[in-house]
Amino acid sequence: MSDLNAALEASAAAVESQLAALIPEVAGGHRRLVEAMRYSALDGGKRLRPFLALECAGLFGADTERALRVAAAIEMVHCYSLVHDDLPAMDDDDLRRGKPTAHIAFDEATAILAGDALLTLAFDVLSDAATDSDGDVRAALVLALARAAGRDGMVGGQMIDLEAETRTLDLDAIIELQAMKTGALIAVSCEAGAILGRASADDSAALAGYATDLGLAFQIADDLLDIEGDAEEVGKGVGKDAAAGKATFVSLLGADEARSRAQGLVSSAIAHLDCFDERADGLRAAARFVVQRRH
Amino acid sequence: MSDLNAALEASAAAVESQLAALIPEVAGGHRRLVEAMRYSALDGGKRLRPFLALECAGLFGADTERALRVAAAIEMVHCYSLVHDDLPAMDDDDLRRGKPTAHIAFDEATAILAGDALLTLAFDVLSDAATDSDGDVRAALVLALARAAGRDGMVGGQMIDLEAETRTLDLDAIIELQAMKTGALIAVSCEAGAILGRASADDSAALAGYATDLGLAFQIADDLLDIEGDAEEVGKGVGKDAAAGKATFVSLLGADEARSRAQGLVSSAIAHLDCFDERADGLRAAARFVVQRRH
Repeated sequence: MSDLNAALEASAAAVESQLAALIPEVAGGHRRLVEAMRYSALDGGKRLRPFLALECAGLFGADTERALRVAAAIEMVHCYSLVHDDLPAMDDDDLRRGKPTAHIAFDEATAILAGDALLTLAFDVLSDAATDSDGDVRAALVLALARAAGRDGMVGGQMIDLEAETRTLDLDAIIELQAMKTGALIAVSCEAGAILGRASADDSAALAGYATDLGLAFQIADDLLDIEGDAEEVGKGVGKDAAAGKATFVSLLGADEARSRAQGLVSSAIAHLDCFDERADGLRAAARFVVQRRH
Repeated sequence: MSDLNAALEASAAAVESQLAALIPEVAGGHRRLVEAMRYSALDGGKRLRPFLALECAGLFGADTERALRVAAAIEMVHCYSLVHDDLPAMDDDDLRRGKPTAHIAFDEATAILAGDALLTLAFDVLSDAATDSDGDVRAALVLALARAAGRDGMVGGQMIDLEAETRTLDLDAIIELQAMKTGALIAVSCEAGAILGRASADDSAALAGYATDLGLAFQIADDLLDIEGDAEEVGKGVGKDAAAGKATFVSLLGADEARSRAQGLVSSAIAHLDCFDERADGLRAAARFVVQRRH
């Protein structure tokens, strides 16, 4: 795990610098907005999605500076989704990554706008010629991210998740919910790396298979952390799903079966990478990591 | 004006059909989200921004179906901004275009997510190959819209506007605020038409000049309506700016001077169109319309 930890830390540091450069402080009247954007995007978590994008782009020798822009854009979308999900009208969370959530540190209006601006900036970054000289590649990156983040992806999943508080979902419905809410953005992280790297159709399909299994394993592990983790280590409130009476992989399968399924998905994810040499070792390690992490 | 009214109505009907096609109803668990998106985007107002995009694209003979996709994407961003601006944490409006606002008709969480999804869908539509076969054009459309809608455009302007409730802005600050909050999206409507139409640099600059003057005239007229209109005709609450003690063009200049400035801007906007023949008559009529409208 120590190789992966070092790789995750190096990647997170590079993404942090890229995000800081893409969201420079401003002196104008919208200074507070930009402060809230930086508060929400910088000093972040593991940066798993950017790591996946960078590793996948690296498989095909894509330029690192360009890959970092793509990775940062995807992380902006992830951070915006956290800001909006934490709002009082949504999950109403006060704590995120051990810090006050954006609407607590600033106010609700500023948090809504900071989320909107982060989402918009992601598409600004992807469509800028600095991300790729080929307009078809830039447009493909925008389309992939928009599809993953939007109505039939992340936002749609969040809608289903909110409604899950009032009706009980079965296992198939939970799998669909998670594929949309968290799986789509994990999948597009890999897909974007493949697009930037001009991957072949076969290699893209292999990465898509890896990402699908990884995304589901990630969510099962998240449900396990929600019952097994403690708030200090996880950095956010735990036990909330159980308290809200929401069905989760753990409530439907039991902890043992959930853990076993997650392990099976990790093996399956790694098997998708057989067509790649040792340059995919980071992706293999990341798959093992998602079910072993404590936060 | 009757020619313009007919043209606006025809354009609005075509945009309505395009929006309905781009936001089809769904049967899945996120049905409620899509209903809220349709509620917020369909059966809308004058559709001024799409009209500008269609008229500008038409100057250069751009394909109508493609122009309608661009026009609809811009209108999605406009509609998302209204949904979020109306939220309790923001302007807290219950009425919009004579209908309950989205968070009243649905709920706050659904309104936030519907806005997020409309914004995301706009970039989905622009980056799709159906909008243009040239990836450089699609990426340019995305970049222009993201810049206009984001941190240094519409969202930044909304942030400044919210803060204006706690400090008094002078005329220059109000002009900057409005250029960001409403001007940028009006300007990008014209710019997008020019991008789609492969306009020359000179023609693009002429349309940008037109759009800048038009946007400011539009906002001054809006401030005049806020004190002179009645709620039924305007379709939303009036007198709110004065009640909130916010500086407006009218409070800073007086109604007569504000009206005179708006007229001057309309003349200036129309003068920018001298390089175009009668095909720009719709844009000329639209400029006269924005200061004469009663809602």
